Amino acid sequence: MASMSTLFIKTPYPFHSFPKPSHTHFSTPLKLSIPLSTNKKTHQKLRISSGLIDPDGGNLVELFVRESQRDEKKKEATSIPRIKLSKIDLQWAHVLSEGWASPLRGFMRESEFLQTLHFNSLRLDDGSVVNMSVPIVLAIDDSQKNRIGESKKVALVDAGDNPIAILSDIEIYKHPKEERIARTWGTTAPGLPYVDEAITNAGNWLIGGDLEVIEPIKYHDGLDRFRLSPAELRKEFTRRNADAVFAFQLRNPVHNGHALLMTDTRRRLLEMGYENPILLLHPLGGYTKADDVPLNWRMKQHEKVLEDGVLDPETTVVSIFPSPMHYAGPTEVQWHAKARINAGANFYIVGRDPAGMGHPVEKRDLYNADHGKKVLSMAPGLERLNILPFKVAAYDKTQNKMAFFDPSRPQDFLFISGTKMRTLAKNRENPPDGFMCPGGWKVLVDYYDSLVPAENGKVPEAVPA
Amino acid sequence: MASMSTLFIKTPYPFHSFPKPSHTHFSTPLKLSIPLSTNKKTHQKLRISSGLIDPDGGNLVELFVRESQRDEKKKEATSIPRIKLSKIDLQWAHVLSEGWASPLRGFMRESEFLQTLHFNSLRLDDGSVVNMSVPIVLAIDDSQKNRIGESKKVALVDAGDNPIAILSDIEIYKHPKEERIARTWGTTAPGLPYVDEAITNAGNWLIGGDLEVIEPIKYHDGLDRFRLSPAELRKEFTRRNADAVFAFQLRNPVHNGHALLMTDTRRRLLEMGYENPILLLHPLGGYTKADDVPLNWRMKQHEKVLEDGVLDPETTVVSIFPSPMHYAGPTEVQWHAKARINAGANFYIVGRDPAGMGHPVEKRDLYNADHGKKVLSMAPGLERLNILPFKVAAYDKTQNKMAFFDPSRPQDFLFISGTKMRTLAKNRENPPDGFMCPGGWKVLVDYYDSLVPAENGKVPEAVPA
Repeated sequence: MASMSTLFIKTPYPFHSFPKPSHTHFSTPLKLSIPLSTNKKTHQKLRISSGLIDPDGGNLVELFVRESQRDEKKKEATSIPRIKLSKIDLQWAHVLSEGWASPLRGFMRESEFLQTLHFNSLRLDDGSVVNMSVPIVLAIDDSQKNRIGESKKVALVDAGDNPIAILSDIEIYKHPKEERIARTWGTTAPGLPYVDEAITNAGNWLIGGDLEVIEPIKYHDGLDRFRLSPAELRKEFTRRNADAVFAFQLRNPVHNGHALLMTDTRRRLLEMGYENPILLLHPLGGYTKADDVPLNWRMKQHEKVLEDGVLDPETTVVSIFPSPMHYAGPTEVQWHAKARINAGANFYIVGRDPAGMGHPVEKRDLYNADHGKKVLSMAPGLERLNILPFKVAAYDKTQNKMAFFDPSRPQDFLFISGTKMRTLAKNRENPPDGFMCPGGWKVLVDYYDSLVPAENGKVPEAVPA
Repeated sequence: MASMSTLFIKTPYPFHSFPKPSHTHFSTPLKLSIPLSTNKKTHQKLRISSGLIDPDGGNLVELFVRESQRDEKKKEATSIPRIKLSKIDLQWAHVLSEGWASPLRGFMRESEFLQTLHFNSLRLDDGSVVNMSVPIVLAIDDSQKNRIGESKKVALVDAGDNPIAILSDIEIYKHPKEERIARTWGTTAPGLPYVDEAITNAGNWLIGGDLEVIEPIKYHDGLDRFRLSPAELRKEFTRRNADAVFAFQLRNPVHNGHALLMTDTRRRLLEMGYENPILLLHPLGGYTKADDVPLNWRMKQHEKVLEDGVLDPETTVVSIFPSPMHYAGPTEVQWHAKARINAGANFYIVGRDPAGMGHPVEKRDLYNADHGKKVLSMAPGLERLNILPFKVAAYDKTQNKMAFFDPSRPQDFLFISGTKMRTLAKNRENPPDGFMCPGGWKVLVDYYDSLVPAENGKVPEAVPA
C-alpha cells in the first residue's frame, strides 16, 4: 500500500483571510492520483452503483419560494397572521428549507410528531420508512393561537418583523411538553440546555404545516459562505468525483486524535476500493449550550487544522451544519446521521457518547457511552448508511503522538480528558507535543483569553474533547 | 417455510467489523391497514389468503422444555446460580414462554431493550420489522450479579424456590431505570403503578438470554382454564372455522356500551363478507393497580355477560391475557395489539385513551386520549393488523339503552362516567335500565360489598369505565 504521507503534503490553503466571503475553499483542483492496492473483487461489491446516496424519500426537498414569486409572497405575508420566530425556530426553518430533514416539508404536524417521539422514524405513503428522531416543531402560545383563528396560513417573521416564510395548510395541536422531553431525552430532570432554552417557556401548542421560505436564510456573521446546503454539498462532492463521502459531526475543536480517525477512515475506504473518498468535516452551527466553544472560534480552529496540514484540503470539505443541538444522545445522533445522508454522505463516523453530556442533576453521564453507536446501527431508516464506530485514540508516549489505543500496552497511553485540555488552554499551557496542531491550539488559548471572566472569576467551561 | 425462530438475532448490530456498503432497504412488505368499509372490492383485498394471520416473525415461539427433558432440566437448575422471580417476573416468563411476544425467545438482551425503548420495534435478521413497544426485562441486583459470576446460565425460581426456567447464553447489562421509565411512559413523575411495583426497587442490572420454561406456568387460582396460550387460541379459532378474529382488550367490567361495540363490529365484518368473525374477549390477567377490579371478579362479571346473552357464546372466546399492565398509554397499546396478532387476531378494537390513567401528579390525564389509536395506526410492525377505532357509546334516554352517540341530538344522551358507575355500585344502587346486564351489575355490587373498608372507611376506587 502506498504511504499515506503523500496525503499529508501541505497544500497551500487557498484563503488565509478567514472572514472574507469566498468559495475558493471548495474549489481545489480535483483528482488526486492515488496509488491503490485495490482488491478488485471487493471493489466490485462495495462500489456504490452510481452517484451519491439518494436523499431520504428519493428527492431532496427544497422549500424556497421561486425568485419571481418573492414579492408576491412578501406581500401575502403582511396580510395573514404572524408568528415571531425565536433564534432556534429560525435555525429549524433554515434546516427544513434546505432539505436536511427531507422528506419533511415543514414544521411537523401531529402525526409526524407522534411518529418521531414513538418510533424515531416516519412511514411514507409508499410504505417506506425514513429516520426522524428529533421533533422539528414550532410552538405557539394561547394568544398566538387565538390570533390565528380560522386562518389556514401564517407568516413566520424574524425578530425584526421581517417575513421569513409562509406556513400553509396548518394544523395546531397540543404541545405535550413533559412527554416530548421524556421521550426525546430519556429524562425530565431540570437543566437540559435545549429544554431550558426552547421548550420550558414555549407555548402550549404546536403548529405544523407546509413551509415556503421566501429567501435563503442568512446570518451575516461572516460564516454564511460555509453554510452549504445539502444541494450545494452534493454538487461539490460530484464536482470532486467523490465515490464515497464520510461525514464527521462535531461541535468541538479538532485534536489530532480526531484527525487520526478521519485520515484512518479514508485509508480504510481506499483499501476497500473506493478511489476518491471525501471527508465532510461538518461542525454543528446552530444553538449550542453556553459552555461549548462558540462556532466562530471553532471555525478558526478548524481552519488552522487544515492549514497545518493535519487534514488534507484536497479531500476535505469543511461546511457548517445549521441544526441546533439537543444534547439528546442516542436519539439525537440519529438526526445527525440522517441529515448527512441528505447531504450525500454514505458513511458516518460515530464517537463515544455522541451528543451526550453530563446528567443535569446526578453525578454521571446522562447516557451510556456505547448506546449512541448501538442505537445508530439499529435505527430504522438508516440501514443504507454505513456506520463507522470511532476507535479510541489516546496520546502514545512512546511515539509522542495521538494513536489508536493498544490494549496490550496500556501503560504507554495517556488519556487527555476534556477537563484536562480545558485547564491547559485556560492556563495558556501547552498540551503534549502532537496532541493538537500548534495553530489550532493557539486558537483555543486565544478563545479562553478573550473571555471576560464572570463575576465569580470563573471562565465558562468548554468541552473540547 | 423454514423455521423463522432461528432468524431472531441476539445482537443485530454488526459493528465489530468495518461495515460494508450496503443497499439493503427496509424490506417489510407493504401492508397498510385498511379502514373498514362495506365496499366489496376492498373486501377482496382485506381477506387473509388462508387460515389465521401469521405470528410475528413467521412462527409462534413456544419456550417449553420437552416433557422428556424436564427432570434433567430440573436437576440442571439446582447446579447453576439462581434468580428468584417476583410475581411480575413470573408473569413475564409466562408471557414469553407461550409466544405472546414472538419472535422474542427470552428476557431482552441489550440490543432488544434499546430497540424497544427507541423504536418500539425490533428488526429481524431478514430485515423485517416486528412491533415490540414494552421492555420485557429481568432485573437483578449487585449481589445476584456477583453470584452469577462467569456462569453462562441461570435458573429462575419462584417464591418457593421451585425451578421455573433456565435462562441461557445470558447477557448482563446496566438497568437505566430513569431512561427506561421516561421512554416507556413519557413521564418520570412519581406514582406510576408499574414503576412503583416493579422498577424503582428493582436491581440496577438487567439480565437477558434464551428462556426455557420447565413446565407451563399455572397459578392454581381457579382461572387457569381460561388462560389459553396463543397456540391454544389459534387451535380454537381454527376449530370454529373463524375467517376473522377481532380482539377486545379489557381490564374492566363489560357494560352494554362495550357489548354494543363488539356486536356492531361483528355485524360490520359480516357485511364486509367475512362469514364467521370470532370475538376474542381478552381481559388482562397479570398485574393491575390496586384500584382496578380484581381479575376473579372481572371474570365472574364477564361470565354473566355471556350467560345473559349480551354477547353470543357461539361467536365469542373469553380467555385471559397473562400480561402485567404498564398503564403506559400509546406505548402499551401497541404491545396489547401485537400480542393478539400472535394469538391469531387480525382485527383489534381500540378505545379512547387505551392503557391510560390519570397523571400521577398533575390534575389531568397522563395521555392525550386520541394518541393511543393514532400511534397504533402508525406503529411499525402492525401494518397487517386492522385497527378498529372504538365508536363512542352513551346511554340513549329515548331508547333506554346504550347506543352510539349521535352528535345531531346530544340532549338525548347520558354519559355515565366511571366515577358515577362506581358510586352507584358502592351504594348498591342500580344504573339506568340497559346500562349493564343485571347479572353483571350484581357481580360488581357484590365486589364492592366484599371489600373490607380500609381504616379510613374508604373503599379503594375501581375504574370500570
